[in-house]
Amino acid sequence: MGRLLVIGGDAAGMTGASVVRRECPGAEVAVVERGPYTSYSMCGLPYYIGGELDDPLDLVVRTPEEFRARGIEVHTNTEAIAIDPATRIVRVHRIDDGEEAEEPYDILLYATGAHPARLPVPGIEHGHAVQTLDEAERLRRALDERDDVGQVVVIGAGYIGMEIAEALVRRGLKATLIDRQLQVMTSLDPDMAAHVEALLVQFGVRVCLGESLREVRASQGRCGEVVTDADTYPADVVVLAMGSKPNVALARDAGCAVGASGALVVDDQLRTSIEGIWAAGDCIESRNLVSGAAQNVQLGTHANKQGKIAGLNIAALLGGRADEEPARFPGVVGTAVTRVCDWEIARTGLSEGEAAAAGLDCVAVRFTGTARSGYLPGAGKVFVKMLAEAGSGRVLGVQLVGSGNVAKRIDVAATWCQLGVRVQDAQLFDLAYAPPFGGVWDLLQVGARRLVDELGLQPRL
Amino acid sequence: MGRLLVIGGDAAGMTGASVVRRECPGAEVAVVERGPYTSYSMCGLPYYIGGELDDPLDLVVRTPEEFRARGIEVHTNTEAIAIDPATRIVRVHRIDDGEEAEEPYDILLYATGAHPARLPVPGIEHGHAVQTLDEAERLRRALDERDDVGQVVVIGAGYIGMEIAEALVRRGLKATLIDRQLQVMTSLDPDMAAHVEALLVQFGVRVCLGESLREVRASQGRCGEVVTDADTYPADVVVLAMGSKPNVALARDAGCAVGASGALVVDDQLRTSIEGIWAAGDCIESRNLVSGAAQNVQLGTHANKQGKIAGLNIAALLGGRADEEPARFPGVVGTAVTRVCDWEIARTGLSEGEAAAAGLDCVAVRFTGTARSGYLPGAGKVFVKMLAEAGSGRVLGVQLVGSGNVAKRIDVAATWCQLGVRVQDAQLFDLAYAPPFGGVWDLLQVGARRLVDELGLQPRL
Repeated sequence: MGRLLVIGGDAAGMTGASVVRRECPGAEVAVVERGPYTSYSMCGLPYYIGGELDDPLDLVVRTPEEFRARGIEVHTNTEAIAIDPATRIVRVHRIDDGEEAEEPYDILLYATGAHPARLPVPGIEHGHAVQTLDEAERLRRALDERDDVGQVVVIGAGYIGMEIAEALVRRGLKATLIDRQLQVMTSLDPDMAAHVEALLVQFGVRVCLGESLREVRASQGRCGEVVTDADTYPADVVVLAMGSKPNVALARDAGCAVGASGALVVDDQLRTSIEGIWAAGDCIESRNLVSGAAQNVQLGTHANKQGKIAGLNIAALLGGRADEEPARFPGVVGTAVTRVCDWEIARTGLSEGEAAAAGLDCVAVRFTGTARSGYLPGAGKVFVKMLAEAGSGRVLGVQLVGSGNVAKRIDVAATWCQLGVRVQDAQLFDLAYAPPFGGVWDLLQVGARRLVDELGLQPRL
Repeated sequence: MGRLLVIGGDAAGMTGASVVRRECPGAEVAVVERGPYTSYSMCGLPYYIGGELDDPLDLVVRTPEEFRARGIEVHTNTEAIAIDPATRIVRVHRIDDGEEAEEPYDILLYATGAHPARLPVPGIEHGHAVQTLDEAERLRRALDERDDVGQVVVIGAGYIGMEIAEALVRRGLKATLIDRQLQVMTSLDPDMAAHVEALLVQFGVRVCLGESLREVRASQGRCGEVVTDADTYPADVVVLAMGSKPNVALARDAGCAVGASGALVVDDQLRTSIEGIWAAGDCIESRNLVSGAAQNVQLGTHANKQGKIAGLNIAALLGGRADEEPARFPGVVGTAVTRVCDWEIARTGLSEGEAAAAGLDCVAVRFTGTARSGYLPGAGKVFVKMLAEAGSGRVLGVQLVGSGNVAKRIDVAATWCQLGVRVQDAQLFDLAYAPPFGGVWDLLQVGARRLVDELGLQPRL
């Protein structure tokens, strides 16, 4: 037995702590968390900001008190400031009383997540980050309590930025979405992102692409304008949604290897390169099973799974069952979904750009279909892009943008990518059909058929 | 080259004819069809009867004239009455002029579909079958044109019967749904079917189970009552939706083998046991890839795929390319979906009853989840049942009944069943997550985790 110390009290950290608590009743389990909350749904923040839910505590899965009641020592408002792997001691700073303290560990689970990228431009401190629940509360208060907010500028057109811009328009505000890239949502190829951009514009969001932030101008502590390299925009409130970087500083300083992605290198059991230090969640690299490359993916679904895996392996170690077959995180295929302006957007595997970067010889097909039979009212429209590898026919990636029931269809393609399924087989799988849910050929099977044809494979249905 | 004759002008037959037309420009391609229509969506009939669409021709994918314009000889209102495999001649009866004629063939594609089961009870002829477009038109006329229809009895609580009962209630009629089984929708296990029954009852359908039809009483050609072995029901109109039997008589008389399922035996290239006769669609048996058993599945999605496969192989033969690698139909896993009273119902693989009948040692888990994150409004409810094989952990089947976006989620499980995926792997797949589409653990992964636990497998997340 011994003591597990977890740095970071959200999905990965608290999941890991809970698994060790369950599996090792004799071990000590302690968590230090910088903020006031534990274990909340970060993905739910845009819905709270947009007013789909009003109580931020609805997003909290479990409070520090609930974890304590289960026998986990939880220190909130406590920031880890240094790790000494030789003595196995973490120095922490207690925000409430300003004191420092030492937390010893036998095993450390490093689950610090990510922090919003902050551009070094003048006035950036006047922008609202939306990475944590307390930041979201501050933004929501700014919107709720001030009558003079009419114009909001959102910097960053990734999925959080888009979701917040939409939420602002729903609240009756004028939203301007600015990104230095030439497209929204760079996880999609430009041709698919163009459909999403058109949707945002039609919904009433002003979208300004290819512009870099230069300054946030404020007077008397209040924002007034956002200046880019191309234009100046009125801005009563500025939201910073420029993506997040893995929090690796402490672990790197302790000697843990950091990969080219900027995230921590771990093996499939989730051990870092330093003995006794494990890591999980938004701060680590995962292997992409389609390209084979390491990448940093910041998603709650992985953080939860990795927390479980790390917890099981740590529990085996603390429980003296190190000869057990370890649990392994298999990797990711790049699945992601979001809802924007009542449309659903989904992607899995590699985009065409990623496949090219990975040196894969592939073919892409694009077409438009519907999420219901065309003869039923409200059939809507779905834009589909699908990629397969030349020669083998292996499915490399799918992107879907559409109205109606679209998002969770990506899971079929995710399974295909995960298992290396070939289009020539996939086109004949027994997928569901009924008129309210599509045509007699499933959209992904239409894509598979077209790819079989394009790639000269058999059977060409 | 030579002449392909197709019996049956719906999905399987017309698809096969079209593939041969495309692949073999030199071949003759002829189709005989008993009814007036070709190639229409049988699955769309309940939506037409219910008034979601008004023009029955919207259901016709392609008319006889359109096929003729592509060089396919189409004889509608023409019934095949005998096949002579020795001389390769089919005798047909032309319904319009009452004449008989002979249609020679080099290859015959038998795609006769299925016919409604008709119980031998007095007055059954007063009931409306709903198998073909012209039958649906007659029922819709009976409902539209008569002001005195208040009570409708639907015999058969399979998915077509349920869909029609729902449509009747939506039209303001009183619908009684009667079935001799003790549950609705026997493709589900009784525990899951009970949720569907409760839904129908709540929607306003009177559901009477475990009752056998004894008589349809009519006077002056109009229905008045339906009599079962338990009760008597007022009935201005009676709908017969008791399921359908494969149309195998002609092929059986020609010597083609018929399996225990009552459907034609074919190999994976879709050849019957008689030289020169191929078959596809609702009249054939397919191999269930989970149980290994042969079964008759009547679904447009298979009919279309089988039509393609048969067409490709026939084209290779007629085109003198018999040395080509043949196309093969891989089999089915039993995927089916439907929408009832705005809920979605889906199943794939084996039910618990089917798994037991197949002698498989398995464990089932049941639980309730949501199709959106619980903290968002309108999260709804989804009942999940999932089965895996003891020892191996192979996913054997999934049943879903729920409100919200549920149906097409079954395709993930269908792919798992198709490929023999194990729950211990599936629980760690990279499936999509965002709050509008579920919890951080996908419903099917919650099921997989529970099965890992129940079966004593690793890793137990």
